Amino acid sequence: MIPPAISRYPVPKLDDLPEDIRVRMLDVQETAGFIPNVFLTLAHRPAEFRAFFAYHDALMERASGLTKAEREMIVVATSGANDCHYCIVAHGAILRIYAKNPLLADQVAANYRKADITPRQKAMLVFALKVSLHSSELVDDDYAAVRAHGFSDEDIWDIGAIAAFFAMSNRIANLISMRPNDEFFVMGRIPRTK
Amino acid sequence: MIPPAISRYPVPKLDDLPEDIRVRMLDVQETAGFIPNVFLTLAHRPAEFRAFFAYHDALMERASGLTKAEREMIVVATSGANDCHYCIVAHGAILRIYAKNPLLADQVAANYRKADITPRQKAMLVFALKVSLHSSELVDDDYAAVRAHGFSDEDIWDIGAIAAFFAMSNRIANLISMRPNDEFFVMGRIPRTK
Amino acid sequence: MIPPAISRYPVPKLDDLPEDIRVRMLDVQETAGFIPNVFLTLAHRPAEFRAFFAYHDALMERASGLTKAEREMIVVATSGANDCHYCIVAHGAILRIYAKNPLLADQVAANYRKADITPRQKAMLVFALKVSLHSSELVDDDYAAVRAHGFSDEDIWDIGAIAAFFAMSNRIANLISMRPNDEFFVMGRIPRTK
Amino acid sequence: MIPPAISRYPVPKLDDLPEDIRVRMLDVQETAGFIPNVFLTLAHRPAEFRAFFAYHDALMERASGLTKAEREMIVVATSGANDCHYCIVAHGAILRIYAKNPLLADQVAANYRKADITPRQKAMLVFALKVSLHSSELVDDDYAAVRAHGFSDEDIWDIGAIAAFFAMSNRIANLISMRPNDEFFVMGRIPRTK
Amino acid sequence: MIPPAISRYPVPKLDDLPEDIRVRMLDVQETAGFIPNVFLTLAHRPAEFRAFFAYHDALMERASGLTKAEREMIVVATSGANDCHYCIVAHGAILRIYAKNPLLADQVAANYRKADITPRQKAMLVFALKVSLHSSELVDDDYAAVRAHGFSDEDIWDIGAIAAFFAMSNRIANLISMRPNDEFFVMGRIPRTK
Amino acid sequence: MIPPAISRYPVPKLDDLPEDIRVRMLDVQETAGFIPNVFLTLAHRPAEFRAFFAYHDALMERASGLTKAEREMIVVATSGANDCHYCIVAHGAILRIYAKNPLLADQVAANYRKADITPRQKAMLVFALKVSLHSSELVDDDYAAVRAHGFSDEDIWDIGAIAAFFAMSNRIANLISMRPNDEFFVMGRIPRTK
Repeated sequence: MIPPAISRYPVPKLDDLPEDIRVRMLDVQETAGFIPNVFLTLAHRPAEFRAFFAYHDALMERASGLTKAEREMIVVATSGANDCHYCIVAHGAILRIYAKNPLLADQVAANYRKADITPRQKAMLVFALKVSLHSSELVDDDYAAVRAHGFSDEDIWDIGAIAAFFAMSNRIANLISMRPNDEFFVMGRIPRTK
Repeated sequence: MIPPAISRYPVPKLDDLPEDIRVRMLDVQETAGFIPNVFLTLAHRPAEFRAFFAYHDALMERASGLTKAEREMIVVATSGANDCHYCIVAHGAILRIYAKNPLLADQVAANYRKADITPRQKAMLVFALKVSLHSSELVDDDYAAVRAHGFSDEDIWDIGAIAAFFAMSNRIANLISMRPNDEFFVMGRIPRTK
Repeated sequence: MIPPAISRYPVPKLDDLPEDIRVRMLDVQETAGFIPNVFLTLAHRPAEFRAFFAYHDALMERASGLTKAEREMIVVATSGANDCHYCIVAHGAILRIYAKNPLLADQVAANYRKADITPRQKAMLVFALKVSLHSSELVDDDYAAVRAHGFSDEDIWDIGAIAAFFAMSNRIANLISMRPNDEFFVMGRIPRTK
Repeated sequence: MIPPAISRYPVPKLDDLPEDIRVRMLDVQETAGFIPNVFLTLAHRPAEFRAFFAYHDALMERASGLTKAEREMIVVATSGANDCHYCIVAHGAILRIYAKNPLLADQVAANYRKADITPRQKAMLVFALKVSLHSSELVDDDYAAVRAHGFSDEDIWDIGAIAAFFAMSNRIANLISMRPNDEFFVMGRIPRTK
Repeated sequence: MIPPAISRYPVPKLDDLPEDIRVRMLDVQETAGFIPNVFLTLAHRPAEFRAFFAYHDALMERASGLTKAEREMIVVATSGANDCHYCIVAHGAILRIYAKNPLLADQVAANYRKADITPRQKAMLVFALKVSLHSSELVDDDYAAVRAHGFSDEDIWDIGAIAAFFAMSNRIANLISMRPNDEFFVMGRIPRTK
Repeated sequence: MIPPAISRYPVPKLDDLPEDIRVRMLDVQETAGFIPNVFLTLAHRPAEFRAFFAYHDALMERASGLTKAEREMIVVATSGANDCHYCIVAHGAILRIYAKNPLLADQVAANYRKADITPRQKAMLVFALKVSLHSSELVDDDYAAVRAHGFSDEDIWDIGAIAAFFAMSNRIANLISMRPNDEFFVMGRIPRTK
């Protein structure tokens, strides 16, 4: 049986890739056990691949007042609003892992208002969704509302920039019909026992 | 009189910037006569600055079936739909320059359907706006519609990826209240005479 | 630790329920291994409980040109469009079981256009979503489009009535903040091995 | 002249109907002077007919903090928002009768904000329309706003459940193109004089 | 009992009005039996009153390929889409009179797709509603669609200009909370018998 | 080279026009240096032309608590929201002239929230845009919000009526594909020096 396509565009073979890109993929494979399709499919355009992951890392791995789980909440909530299948499934898995919570991703993807998160995190998602869906309507009150929950101005940049970056990612994933790896669907759903 | 703020966030001084970023700015200044505020305001976060412009250049300067003016049309049309003041004004100016047409940018920002462009360019903008506004609804017919105007699959990636990249840019500009330089408003409006 | 509330309203104890309702719950418990919260939470209003499940069964268990998995696809796709956390999670689980497919529910909830389903099933979901979101705009062409895929008029009633019934269910679940049982999140995700 | 169809589906003859359904119709006919088309058209599916009216009666005839006229206001306002011709006309007539007010139904169907109703009733309709149109966005403040007008939690269930039930009814009526009886258009418009 | 206000603004007395405006009102009163509130409320601003009715008459009374009933259909359908209580009720009455049809106005206000009108009239209303709701998206195909039903270019101007004029009227009526006269609610509902 | 059409409809020659219309055009030409296309294109229908400009003048030239520049801000902001190419460009030029500000029109057309205007003017535009886009949702709080900035009830009528009049103008301009004169694009962009 032919496996389903993971992109509308050609997917390069590992051996044909520039060294830096192949190395990054092998690193991820070692950690995750498989290569997420976002790497394989974006490698069709090496220059864009490099910029994409440089941007991603700059936002998702920098020191921040937001935990890694909180950053993934922003990704999952805004990707849910944009109906991005790849991002909901792949980042949902990552959120389950970071939050050590098997329920949280599906809750946040469907409706963060009913999710098991703190009021501070709900305020964070209100702001993120406004950036994602109605950024031109941002006014001072929106910034005040997140500051009231203790977010600094740099944290607010993080919230907004992550929402903005995934506004791009969602559109690219939809453009090329990026398909999530099967592995993501079940990752983090069964709490590990030692 | 204090000039109006160009960002909600601190704007670094040129002398305090990393060498590569300062050099890039001075290069732009030499070409354009001034430093566009997108450089000055994003420099608050050097890692994101580098990724942003690497991505921008990968899309806007690569060899493509789209002319530079056509790429700017995509920027202006989608930024108009997202009500992004910075991008409409700054990229409107660039569009006027590339297209050597003082009217085109205001036409495309308001309503590309009434603009002085070709049916092929209108089809390009229909696709770009669907990526910008309803990317989850993309179906095979949308790709066929642009292919029918002679766009290759790689051109379609360009159209969609530019729309996606500026979906991000628009949100960042709105997030930080990026203000366009006064110079942009009049650039390209008076046809040069020798 | 107090478990999270499953409804904004009081949840009756099994012993306090009318006989017919208690019997139905115990039946479900025997089959599923647990009592889905839709039974426990709607039992607060016995007359509405009875009508709700009578309606549900009339649509979901009648002989039809639609398979049980197809009916659940309609539920999951329209509940995704209505952001109903309970229905996405609970009926997502049921869809995985009926379709014997661990990926399908998350695909359909996010974006049926990218799901591993047939063109006939996509046409079915186009019609169902129009009933769910824009029913006043239904015109003859919409009926012709599903008939062209071999659906009979009675099948079309089934598609539309299921979409309509879950338009109600979604709103009730959102109204009372119905919480899905933890069991649903993982049901049907691991293909059973003998 | 052939009278216009009252449904896209076959309408059973009274003599062919199950006894309980025929009896219910004859009862209504005796009270109203005619059989509303919702009875005739839904009888095409007896099991669904029984569940539909059981649900309807459970909500519309139970003891409640809402008057019967108030419940019909919810029906008319939400049906107006859903552009359901049958429900606006038929329940508009019932609202005129219950409220003994020949103007109220047209006011509420067009724009409840300008209707001759109390602030408490306007708050009720704000909540009902949020359930009808944006139920996933319901938050604690929405419940507090109606409680501030003296509505109990059970009243709020009534408001929301009626809005939800007619979300379903509107979609079914639009699905089958249910046509209102001519009698409804003029019912309750001329105040009766003894 | 104080009658309800017919406007948020002062309503001038007939005796205080400029001669031409008073004469127009008395003329209408003689024909209709009462003075519609649009005359009384707009008279607060005599210059605007004169321009409003000059415009109205230029569109609604000129020789045209559209009957007077068809023009009122446009008014009622677009006013329904704009939720304008005054216009739905007042022009609904006029539509019943012109069309000699007691059902048509409520049908068209709720959902013209289900109304007892010709396919040509439905095409006319599709165009009118696009002008009313999405005029910037008008493209050549929209004009071709109405031309295919035999509308001339001048008829199309009439359709569009009436939709545009009532886009203004609806907003003014909503702005000042213009209240329809009680007489309109029942006008034309009972077919006259000789 | 044939100049592009300024309307989908025939444009009468000056000599063929009724005397009053020709005189008005020549007057404008003397002041502005050219005849704006709104005059030339609407002259196809003299009766509507006269009513249109009578209405326009009644609103835009009456004594008011709003400056002429403020009235043009309303035109530009609402025309931006309605994507009306003619009105954005032509009234943008007029706004630059009246405000003696070369940046203001592009700011207000894109996003008034980021424009160099006072809080009072922003409140005025919030109200104007609600009239333009959601007039049926106007409630007492909306009027209170502008009154709090010192606008009188008559000023509020002006704000709302200008928004309403240009709701009509935008639709007519879109209907006939009215093209702005080239002169407007650059008017007021270069501050005059003595």
